[in-house]
Amino acid sequence: MIIQKEISLKPKSRGFHLITSEIYNHLPELKEIKTGIAHIFIKHTSASLTINENADPTVRSDMETYFNKLVPENATYFEHTLEGKDDMTSHIKNTIIGSSLIIPITNGKFNLGTWQGIYLCEHRNYGGTRKIIITILGER
Amino acid sequence: MIIQKEISLKPKSRGFHLITSEIYNHLPELKEIKTGIAHIFIKHTSASLTINENADPTVRSDMETYFNKLVPENATYFEHTLEGKDDMTSHIKNTIIGSSLIIPITNGKFNLGTWQGIYLCEHRNYGGTRKIIITILGER
Amino acid sequence: MIIQKEISLKPKSRGFHLITSEIYNHLPELKEIKTGIAHIFIKHTSASLTINENADPTVRSDMETYFNKLVPENATYFEHTLEGKDDMTSHIKNTIIGSSLIIPITNGKFNLGTWQGIYLCEHRNYGGTRKIIITILGER
Repeated sequence: MIIQKEISLKPKSRGFHLITSEIYNHLPELKEIKTGIAHIFIKHTSASLTINENADPTVRSDMETYFNKLVPENATYFEHTLEGKDDMTSHIKNTIIGSSLIIPITNGKFNLGTWQGIYLCEHRNYGGTRKIIITILGER
Repeated sequence: MIIQKEISLKPKSRGFHLITSEIYNHLPELKEIKTGIAHIFIKHTSASLTINENADPTVRSDMETYFNKLVPENATYFEHTLEGKDDMTSHIKNTIIGSSLIIPITNGKFNLGTWQGIYLCEHRNYGGTRKIIITILGER
Repeated sequence: MIIQKEISLKPKSRGFHLITSEIYNHLPELKEIKTGIAHIFIKHTSASLTINENADPTVRSDMETYFNKLVPENATYFEHTLEGKDDMTSHIKNTIIGSSLIIPITNGKFNLGTWQGIYLCEHRNYGGTRKIIITILGER
């Protein structure tokens, strides 16, 4: 059984955001799946998806601090600069962090660890709405 | 055909560890799958999974050396510090390296390259047992 | 329905290369799939797969520039040096960027965003032919 849908995530400020609930709200179908996987794919090259700690907000702000140091906007060696200082750095962060997640499904829910949540990592200053394709492969 | 199971990996010291055999030992079912994929997912935010060189142990120790330089524990800009100097850095390494792997299955085995092995990357000083969900989607 | 095949990518120079068309040329079967996912897996530990911007070639050259600074070949702390200065750095880049992609399939095509393309990231100076396993799980 395969279920696929495209959803739009509400615009987020630059930074790392917990979106587990927002994803769940778009997936009433998940309840019907006994065993399977969910593939969550972002159709953009300047925002990323990851799984990380779902409790302390400073983990998310420390992530933003760290990745801004790792991929500095004031680097002088980039040639792709026409779209702003936050563009090439966003592409690089996207390749480091990744465009998709696969999460196991067990008894109608994401089978995440106690401390795991789904993050949208918005790398642009003004990223706008982000489109996500979710594909569920599972059995009832 | 979907097979899903939760396994526990034995506690590992901080560093990069080859776990291909340990995973195989938990998966006698693999022999029955002619074609498919295996999703291997770690339910933690301070240890990661990757695939890399399976022969020379210095590849694994060089990985540990490199990632400790990439995400330095003596950085003064982290706010999430209550759980120890190896905690926020572990979350960052987890987001860089990743929480899950998908490996093709062909004729009852992981279809890995000659030099590829599965690594558990233990980022904490004392990580303990790590829980893994394996989901196989395949055909006999 | 599961389709799996091994393909060989033509040798590429060191750097980041757009391979969306080369992958499509190997996948006439894709047209038959209404909904599903494609798993693209590289059987090597010194070349990677990612998805990123498919238009401006300077994005790809900036990626190469950036990753060479991130993982410097003149570092003196590596022990795995017998296979050349570009070997251990290639393994690290592979673990940062990743060995596999999952792409949603919708109506016989990869459901990528307008600006997304598939990259082969060749980290070795002379990487040669690269073997890829593609596994499609889908419904007609």
